[in-house]
Amino acid sequence: MNDRTGRPISLDKALTSFDALWSPRIVTRVNDYDVRVAKVEGEHVWHVHEDTDEFFLVLEGELHIALREPAGERTVVLPRGAVFTVPRGTEHKPYAASRTAIMMFEPSGTSTVGDRHDEIPAHVDATTGHRLGA
Amino acid sequence: MNDRTGRPISLDKALTSFDALWSPRIVTRVNDYDVRVAKVEGEHVWHVHEDTDEFFLVLEGELHIALREPAGERTVVLPRGAVFTVPRGTEHKPYAASRTAIMMFEPSGTSTVGDRHDEIPAHVDATTGHRLGA
Repeated sequence: MNDRTGRPISLDKALTSFDALWSPRIVTRVNDYDVRVAKVEGEHVWHVHEDTDEFFLVLEGELHIALREPAGERTVVLPRGAVFTVPRGTEHKPYAASRTAIMMFEPSGTSTVGDRHDEIPAHVDATTGHRLGA
Repeated sequence: MNDRTGRPISLDKALTSFDALWSPRIVTRVNDYDVRVAKVEGEHVWHVHEDTDEFFLVLEGELHIALREPAGERTVVLPRGAVFTVPRGTEHKPYAASRTAIMMFEPSGTSTVGDRHDEIPAHVDATTGHRLGA
């Protein structure tokens, strides 16, 4: 958790330490959960986490999350400073029209592409999160 | 989770919906965790969560967290946009010199004053978090 010396971490600095899109960095841990940040732009992929909710906070830009719910498909729009929790078992696809930065909170080991997903495009990193600075 | 209609929540709007200091509001849930926001100013109280880490993100202002660690006492300073996880079992006391807004992640049911604490001053709300708008 925190950095190796137990100091606070600036999310801005964390975000300037990497360029890859759709490739989350783990900034700290909270019990068995990760706090991750990611830069995103364009489309992610339809996927579902069967066993966990997934929390999003928009730090910069605007994030859209398409959701497939029992009542049909809809999209939620998160401007900067908005939060949303995608419920477990709900198929979703994040996308961003322009460069956007997000923070996520989810159990350590959660895959960016979930337990079921469409074909993974080349620009999407299938990962359980990278170490900051790695 | 989210609001009752499954819409994103603006943290700014959430923060304008109440005035009480040191009295967290639950903005959304992630599995069995709360995402809480609080307005803080002045001193909280020395306390410890024996069984859980506690995550802080500073949304506005600057948060200080005094920590009693095996090596001695120290204070970490979190400017806006900084994150820090207080490890379980570490006595800590947050304070802020001027009005500050924070977001926290912690298991639902976690008390603001932990499992052990100094005498609780009148300005500190001993709570497991309030519903937004309640």
